[in-house]
Amino acid sequence: MQSWQDGPTRSAIIEFVARVSREVDPVERVAVFDNDGTLWCEKPMYIQLDFIVRRLADKVAADPSLAEGQPYLAAHNGDLQWFGGAITKHYQGDDTDLKTLAAAVLSLHDSVKVEDHAAAVGTFFAEAMHPTLHRRYLECTYAPMVELLRYLADHEFACYIVSGGGRDFMRPVTSQIYGIPPERVVGSAQGLKFVGADGYGDLLLQPALDIWDDGPEKPVRIWNRIGRRPIFAAGNSNGDDEMLMYTGAQDGPSLKMLVHHDDAEREFAYTAGAERALGHAEQYGWTTVSMRDDWATVFRD
Amino acid sequence: MQSWQDGPTRSAIIEFVARVSREVDPVERVAVFDNDGTLWCEKPMYIQLDFIVRRLADKVAADPSLAEGQPYLAAHNGDLQWFGGAITKHYQGDDTDLKTLAAAVLSLHDSVKVEDHAAAVGTFFAEAMHPTLHRRYLECTYAPMVELLRYLADHEFACYIVSGGGRDFMRPVTSQIYGIPPERVVGSAQGLKFVGADGYGDLLLQPALDIWDDGPEKPVRIWNRIGRRPIFAAGNSNGDDEMLMYTGAQDGPSLKMLVHHDDAEREFAYTAGAERALGHAEQYGWTTVSMRDDWATVFRD
Repeated sequence: MQSWQDGPTRSAIIEFVARVSREVDPVERVAVFDNDGTLWCEKPMYIQLDFIVRRLADKVAADPSLAEGQPYLAAHNGDLQWFGGAITKHYQGDDTDLKTLAAAVLSLHDSVKVEDHAAAVGTFFAEAMHPTLHRRYLECTYAPMVELLRYLADHEFACYIVSGGGRDFMRPVTSQIYGIPPERVVGSAQGLKFVGADGYGDLLLQPALDIWDDGPEKPVRIWNRIGRRPIFAAGNSNGDDEMLMYTGAQDGPSLKMLVHHDDAEREFAYTAGAERALGHAEQYGWTTVSMRDDWATVFRD
Repeated sequence: MQSWQDGPTRSAIIEFVARVSREVDPVERVAVFDNDGTLWCEKPMYIQLDFIVRRLADKVAADPSLAEGQPYLAAHNGDLQWFGGAITKHYQGDDTDLKTLAAAVLSLHDSVKVEDHAAAVGTFFAEAMHPTLHRRYLECTYAPMVELLRYLADHEFACYIVSGGGRDFMRPVTSQIYGIPPERVVGSAQGLKFVGADGYGDLLLQPALDIWDDGPEKPVRIWNRIGRRPIFAAGNSNGDDEMLMYTGAQDGPSLKMLVHHDDAEREFAYTAGAERALGHAEQYGWTTVSMRDDWATVFRD
């Protein structure tokens, strides 16, 4: 745990793991991690949004007439403010642009085989750079959290990702960057359709949302996928609040961790979208991680 | 593999596993098994239906006025023909009784905590006997299939159940009877709702179907849960047909197995509901298991 500064947070982790090692059957050692803003950087925009913008721009390159409408025009022009504005307007009660965006995003991979989609994601990650941090997205994971994943695995925890991000966007890289295999990646997802002929079959992505894995849906998906209550959870936003509440039986050891982005110098400083979770962390004694004070390093080299 | 008779089926399994051990990365060794009729006995009625009938009868005992209507009257009287008839009528185009039954079944555990439901299932299995085989349901698993599960696990396969049966009905016993933990049990499921207060939360069953894990939905759920294409699949009915078609890349080793119930003496003999899958097995060269000829023993002692 050398990427963590000495202090109460690091001590809390080490004491928790020591207690679990003594008291908890290995099969019950389930740990769940949010991804965006908890394991990898989510600013200035979600990494998946960058992937989507590039794929939309690819479509315009193949069919320039698409640039007559949004979100293709914004993607073609690299107008990221349009995408941010769609989300801002949503919170102001105007869903017009978000609906336009969602329809285009869901149709992006309509009828694409899941294996071909995974290959497209792999190509993106092989090349794409973070716009301001001067490193590949694959190197935008938080070194202390990756070290924590390994530390927990070394103590016979099963670590899962439970993210609002796309399940099939994360899976192609999680083994490499986190040591988490596809079957332990829980996230939002498009619908799938089985198409078979001559004794074989494939799964094709469909232009409809199947799972929106955020907020109260996170504990539901945890039960669906794992069938146990976690004893460790880490998140960074209001979308993780219910997952943190669900974690830990009332009479056993548990650790509920909230990553607080307070390091403008090395990463980003923001609390927007995390207000309720930060309030609960203080109210219920969850472990708040200060990126500035608790992390000796932020990114892996 | 001593519970399997010497012969082409046993040889096909052993040769497949030997080839996989040489050629396939352990992370790709995914095996999927249907449950009812593949791992445990499904005749004269699904084990889960027996659980449901007993729970319905419990409700009548607590509130005798329920016996004025179905399916409570049938449950109270032990009239299993009414339940079978509801399903028969469904296939004849009349859903009236099936809808009455489904509504009652979904409401049975309305707002029950998932842990309390698991405890009720555990109590059922601790006591319940098969109506004709003179053994507990827990002893109605097929010895050759349990041996196969272990044989595959010994060769670094990850074995999953992918069943039309209830996910949360199977999970409480699959570790004990199959060595399959809850996170590797895929099945049909009711909706869940998160209810939180004071920093803690629980998941409550809801009176609505979330997943009906049968037919073309099986490969979809396999991708959702596992994120890989299996290389081994075993089933016994038309509901497993798409799962078998989905199994195996066209250029790698795979084994697709269909259990054929042809042993009236030791178990049951039937093909109803398996016609299409048996046809595909013959057409595409899948491995058909004859319970009568291929199994040295049927049930574990």
